[in-house]
Amino acid sequence: MLLFKNLVHRSQLFLKAQSFPAISCLSQTIFLKMKYSTSFDSDTKYRRFNSRFKTKNYYKFVSVIVVSSCGAYLLKDRKIFLSSDETSSRKPSYPMYTLEEVSKHATKQDRIWVTYEDRVYDITEFVDDHPGGDVIMMAAGSALDPFWITYGFHKQAEVIKILETYRIGNISKEESAESVANLMDPYDSDPERNPILKINAHKPFNAEPPLPLLVQNFITPSDLFYIRNHLPVPLVDEKDYELEITGMGVEEKALTLDILKSKFEKVSVTATIQCAGNRRSDMVKVKPVKGLNWEGGAIGNAVWSGVRLRDVLEFCGLKDVSKIRHIQFEGLDTDPTNVPYGASIPIEKLLNPLSDVILAYEMNGEPLSRDHGYPLRVIVPGVAGARNVKWLGKIILSDKESDSHWQQNDYKGFCPSVDWDTVDFKSSLAIQELPVISAICDPLEGQRVSLQNGKLIVNGYAWSGGGCKVIRVDVTANKGQHWQPAEIIQQENANPGRCWSWVLWRAEIPMNENVNEVEIWAKAVDSNYNTQPESFENIWNLRGVLANAYHRVRVNVINKDKIR
Amino acid sequence: MLLFKNLVHRSQLFLKAQSFPAISCLSQTIFLKMKYSTSFDSDTKYRRFNSRFKTKNYYKFVSVIVVSSCGAYLLKDRKIFLSSDETSSRKPSYPMYTLEEVSKHATKQDRIWVTYEDRVYDITEFVDDHPGGDVIMMAAGSALDPFWITYGFHKQAEVIKILETYRIGNISKEESAESVANLMDPYDSDPERNPILKINAHKPFNAEPPLPLLVQNFITPSDLFYIRNHLPVPLVDEKDYELEITGMGVEEKALTLDILKSKFEKVSVTATIQCAGNRRSDMVKVKPVKGLNWEGGAIGNAVWSGVRLRDVLEFCGLKDVSKIRHIQFEGLDTDPTNVPYGASIPIEKLLNPLSDVILAYEMNGEPLSRDHGYPLRVIVPGVAGARNVKWLGKIILSDKESDSHWQQNDYKGFCPSVDWDTVDFKSSLAIQELPVISAICDPLEGQRVSLQNGKLIVNGYAWSGGGCKVIRVDVTANKGQHWQPAEIIQQENANPGRCWSWVLWRAEIPMNENVNEVEIWAKAVDSNYNTQPESFENIWNLRGVLANAYHRVRVNVINKDKIR
Repeated sequence: MLLFKNLVHRSQLFLKAQSFPAISCLSQTIFLKMKYSTSFDSDTKYRRFNSRFKTKNYYKFVSVIVVSSCGAYLLKDRKIFLSSDETSSRKPSYPMYTLEEVSKHATKQDRIWVTYEDRVYDITEFVDDHPGGDVIMMAAGSALDPFWITYGFHKQAEVIKILETYRIGNISKEESAESVANLMDPYDSDPERNPILKINAHKPFNAEPPLPLLVQNFITPSDLFYIRNHLPVPLVDEKDYELEITGMGVEEKALTLDILKSKFEKVSVTATIQCAGNRRSDMVKVKPVKGLNWEGGAIGNAVWSGVRLRDVLEFCGLKDVSKIRHIQFEGLDTDPTNVPYGASIPIEKLLNPLSDVILAYEMNGEPLSRDHGYPLRVIVPGVAGARNVKWLGKIILSDKESDSHWQQNDYKGFCPSVDWDTVDFKSSLAIQELPVISAICDPLEGQRVSLQNGKLIVNGYAWSGGGCKVIRVDVTANKGQHWQPAEIIQQENANPGRCWSWVLWRAEIPMNENVNEVEIWAKAVDSNYNTQPESFENIWNLRGVLANAYHRVRVNVINKDKIR
Repeated sequence: MLLFKNLVHRSQLFLKAQSFPAISCLSQTIFLKMKYSTSFDSDTKYRRFNSRFKTKNYYKFVSVIVVSSCGAYLLKDRKIFLSSDETSSRKPSYPMYTLEEVSKHATKQDRIWVTYEDRVYDITEFVDDHPGGDVIMMAAGSALDPFWITYGFHKQAEVIKILETYRIGNISKEESAESVANLMDPYDSDPERNPILKINAHKPFNAEPPLPLLVQNFITPSDLFYIRNHLPVPLVDEKDYELEITGMGVEEKALTLDILKSKFEKVSVTATIQCAGNRRSDMVKVKPVKGLNWEGGAIGNAVWSGVRLRDVLEFCGLKDVSKIRHIQFEGLDTDPTNVPYGASIPIEKLLNPLSDVILAYEMNGEPLSRDHGYPLRVIVPGVAGARNVKWLGKIILSDKESDSHWQQNDYKGFCPSVDWDTVDFKSSLAIQELPVISAICDPLEGQRVSLQNGKLIVNGYAWSGGGCKVIRVDVTANKGQHWQPAEIIQQENANPGRCWSWVLWRAEIPMNENVNEVEIWAKAVDSNYNTQPESFENIWNLRGVLANAYHRVRVNVINKDKIR
């Protein structure tokens, strides 16, 4: 009942947001500050803080994003929702420049100028501190506008306020109009989504299902499956679609979907895919991190059908793999400079026939939806979602890892003491297999629950990467004084090492009648007997990934006797 | 220097024990009670506490073993070191029986009688409480003596004291002498060992190297490698040796060592082998467990050379593996009823060519020593020592796991709340791959250390099972307020997923000059980004296996200024 109320409330909020985008900023800020607390949306190129970026500025930036994320949340899909009128006006006192003049300032030596709408900025002093790193140089000597359409989170009053401190001039209204004349919002063609999803970012779109709903199905319905996009969803016409295969040891080939479907055996793999940032919202309670505020729903289990990667590569003549070290994947989703999303997995995934890596064209018996990679994605069971590249355009066999931002400068773990001043992304290993994790999904934090026959009923999921099978989930309602194994209510009939699905579990914890507030903990153990770390303090990392510490949920027990 | 002193002291103790076995019992008890505290040697059939065994009796038994282990420690290799004269005398008041009469009492219906030396006992009421389970029935109606030779730890004053409570009579001296006339101590032919090893049990022999020595070599010298025997070391003549291969999908074959060496490619694998009970001595601090008191030295890294298991099985005609689920191994080491040591690994280890499972006849370039499995053992990299069967006699391809005690009723993990009253061994998974672990080896707990240039120098190892590569070791000297990554000083150049060796690490932790006592913690992170659990409270298990919580070592910092 409570769940239902929550969902109705969420839907109402959603509809409200569609109709009344101008809800007062104050109430938004309060509401959303609660929701987004210390984190901000990320994982795109903009997020590449480089090591020179000063802590002071980082926290300034974090606070900027917190406030501005708040403002953005309910204003879904408005192309330019913060016009210059609202933030800063064109000031006649500033000198006028032409776009030609601006274009001459594209290096540090010549100073770095950019335009936004009808205004000119000298950002030379800012580029080293840009949270997204060198990517900002793509706009040097030209307009920021197209980039800010793809990386929509820039369009926040507070970001513009920072930019405004670098203001040096104006361009004419005419030139300004010209510079953005043909700009389309690449997110305009994003698909419709299930409004029940909790949205963590709009552009790119990132959303997760409510946790109590998530664990009602062993196979996650496709429209409830979390969506984690890094860029706009590409528009693909199946008729034109070709998968390009190239690199070491193969004859270069372009395969249509028809060829893939007709030439190779169709196989299905039931596999859980999880974002490396899942449960980040728990980690940020320790200290702010950079990343989307996933609550625990950035995970799902589906039946993926398609063809074996191995079969396809053998068809392309692959025999000698001795020099190949990595299999790179490129998506059809691209940034404003046409750089595609990219990732790679080690060659061992190909050499081990038990890896079950497939090129999937179906999810749960239907063609992939656009949000989940239509028409083709790679499924690398047991490996972080970021490597399960969607809208697969190209496979490259190489002796090197993908050089994409997401492989090199994102999705890596660090020691808790590493901060944005000291981080060296090269020093760490790209996340592939994910560690063992569990979550309590029902009841939710702060929920009021009634006992059933003196027992507290708790439901959740658990999973481990690398094919490790979850063999036990332990729960406690008294901070570890007594642990009890939960009942595994659904799991895959697969052997350890090749078990790709999560387990759903349920625990009935006997409760003393006089208890009011209870803190429930859950931890899973996998077939390698790895278990979860106890707390986030000792696994905290600046990107907020690998948030697999014990899940701890406080609930209020309704004592019926007291109510009477 | 301190290390050297420790070693000298240990060697002196060892020599003393050889020469003066009659050191006063009191001092032994005090000395060894400290050493053995709450655990006792185990892992043999005797250790199979069945679920009916009452907790009360269990703790009684534990305390019996603690005290009696103490008495045993320094009395190495004495065949019968507690004679009836020392424990209980033949009492003329008891009735006399003949061995023939005794033999008629071999079932519960007829009452269960046994003899030990010249005494007769009715143990009908004890058999259900026997910590070793049904194995005791092997002696029903006959003499305990031969069994107690193999399971030497029974020969303790306190065990005999318990037995004495079931005393019902005597047999004649003649019959007694006859019943043990041909008994040989099967441990008499055990090999000589490096006296530097710290002995955890004599019969079967179990010993580990001192930790500071252990981390002085990336490849552990063979004579420093921990020894974990479950039974007497078999005497094998290479000329007569044959490896039997049988079971599903293969032509039965018996292969000599010559055939193995000449028919198949010789391959080498550098792999760390670790006992599942390593670091148990840390876990027992929380609550007593059943198992040998390994400190952290039940691990070693060696170069193993031999032939691929896969090659050998293919040679035996293996093609169709579809029905095979497990590969069983039997050792040539046997219990008094000729039941061999046994274990199995899942078939996936064979199907994945990256598993690197070999039948090894060499360790570090030399033929295997007798303690390490001469002439042949299986090496299953990444998997618990117990499955790396030594003195390999037989390989059986099967649809079932090994039914050996050590596979079915030992070497499994359980929820912390499971005790000997509630344990159901069938409910848990046999340990195969081991979880990520690390240990601080130098300095040792309680050691006095000088700072070097204001820094505390810490050395240790880290390892993870299943081929996971250790990618980071974090250390802290202020309980996690600040973690620093240790320097990985030696590691294998291998990819994650196929990295079998440990890493050796070193940390230089800056220290405030005024610090006196410091607690150092270490935790490792592997390539699946699994990390160690923080504390033993939440991973405690009744067998004391999988003791991989953070290693915490307290040391006293010598402040030179204060000394001046």
